Amino acid sequence: MSTLFQQQFKAYGELIESYLQGLPWPSDALSQGMCYSLMSGGKRIRPVLALAATTAVGGEVRQILPAAAALEFIHTYSLIHDDLPAMDNDDYRRGRLANHKVFGEAHAILAGDALLTYAFELLAMPLPVPPEVQLRVIREVAQAAGPQGMVGGQVADLAGEGKTLTLAEVERIHQKKTGALLAVSARLGAILGGGTEQAIEALTCYAQALGLAFQIKDDILDVEGDSAVLGKPAGSDVRQGKSTYPALLGLDGAKEHLSRQVALAKDALAELGASASFLRDLADFVAARQR
Amino acid sequence: MSTLFQQQFKAYGELIESYLQGLPWPSDALSQGMCYSLMSGGKRIRPVLALAATTAVGGEVRQILPAAAALEFIHTYSLIHDDLPAMDNDDYRRGRLANHKVFGEAHAILAGDALLTYAFELLAMPLPVPPEVQLRVIREVAQAAGPQGMVGGQVADLAGEGKTLTLAEVERIHQKKTGALLAVSARLGAILGGGTEQAIEALTCYAQALGLAFQIKDDILDVEGDSAVLGKPAGSDVRQGKSTYPALLGLDGAKEHLSRQVALAKDALAELGASASFLRDLADFVAARQR
Repeated sequence: MSTLFQQQFKAYGELIESYLQGLPWPSDALSQGMCYSLMSGGKRIRPVLALAATTAVGGEVRQILPAAAALEFIHTYSLIHDDLPAMDNDDYRRGRLANHKVFGEAHAILAGDALLTYAFELLAMPLPVPPEVQLRVIREVAQAAGPQGMVGGQVADLAGEGKTLTLAEVERIHQKKTGALLAVSARLGAILGGGTEQAIEALTCYAQALGLAFQIKDDILDVEGDSAVLGKPAGSDVRQGKSTYPALLGLDGAKEHLSRQVALAKDALAELGASASFLRDLADFVAARQR
Repeated sequence: MSTLFQQQFKAYGELIESYLQGLPWPSDALSQGMCYSLMSGGKRIRPVLALAATTAVGGEVRQILPAAAALEFIHTYSLIHDDLPAMDNDDYRRGRLANHKVFGEAHAILAGDALLTYAFELLAMPLPVPPEVQLRVIREVAQAAGPQGMVGGQVADLAGEGKTLTLAEVERIHQKKTGALLAVSARLGAILGGGTEQAIEALTCYAQALGLAFQIKDDILDVEGDSAVLGKPAGSDVRQGKSTYPALLGLDGAKEHLSRQVALAKDALAELGASASFLRDLADFVAARQR
């Protein structure tokens, strides 16, 4: 990973953090619950992906900040709801108590609902792009986050718990549960940045491979990772009987599968040239990360 | 209430039902959970209000059906989440088991999340109105349903349980929890129907008064109503120690307050003439309903 990549990642991250912190947060219990999870040191992969995709098609990142931030709101809501006792029943997230352990279940459900709803307010904020393009992005984000995408993926994930799934089944769940929102993050950046349909499709392929790489790496870290670095207990997938890549392919097989996805992701960017070099490095980063 | 009003109400309702049923529902567990609550015989007040507001400003109701239906999706999601054990813990809704009693808590949370997300997909569907107008509607609906509106109202409602609230506090909770979505329903219809800003404001005032009337009547029905007709046990507000209008104003005082809101609602429509006669009758209907 180049220093340039690290600097760029930091710059994107800082843009997003300062945008999030600059939003008009009222001093009430609901905002406190929303901010607790939103400002808990996530990697901001989705908004970073959106900003980098905009850069790759020659767009201006500052212009799409509200829309990029909306992706983090949606991701955060999904984590809060997934952690609930009725769902995955996780007490910790990113090394801190889960939202419902701090604020109680009712407020955690509502903080999630509020984050999801506010995301669409952000997506509909006036941007310097044609309004019909913005409507397309809203439709695409809703599809990716909704019953045919992320929410559907969580339903399938719950249904698969404790069962032995095939690789194809595991892959389909990940494509909906995490892949769809990652793919639409790249699409959002590419569409709002004024990319051609060809560039939008290339960035979609990239993000789909990146999403799988991300998930495979997550599963590998659950086996090999250090609980202190991960911010959550390692080995929890195995204990919960989840069908992970290492369980399905063996640890070496999972690592090969990871390398293949990283290669696929980079190949997809072939026609985008130097403007996409950050995204190439991002694929390596996802595979190399320790948490 | 005129026969014409009843026929019009039925016609609006049928338009909405057939639109909802015509959506591409996949045959999966998530759709089943979403449809269970969406198709449970609600009065469709919010979409009807939107269609009637469009009529009042001279718009074409069929053109705004996806957006009007989205309001019912948002309302339904809020009912599913409100009924959860961690929230109001209600086992019944509209005379049937609550969503979580049939599908379990995890699936009820996810059905709510899916309904909310899909609502924004519907709101962003191509309509024969200028796209910037549609973006305005999406922003307004998100604001009304989000942290400063409906979700914020539910947080305030939970905080107020078991406490003695003033009339002003009760009113502020209702304005956010139920009033904001009702008001934006009328606004959505008026804006998408091409109404003037003056007509949009008039219909907003109407819907705010209608929303309060609706809530006052709900509270009165909880005291006077028949559990079998209501589809839920009467007297549950009192048992839960809620600050209701009859508790604050006495039963007669609550009825006077209801009449005042109905009059305010009708007064707001003064400049809209005959095209708003359905809405005038709707205010009477809300006050006279037995469930």
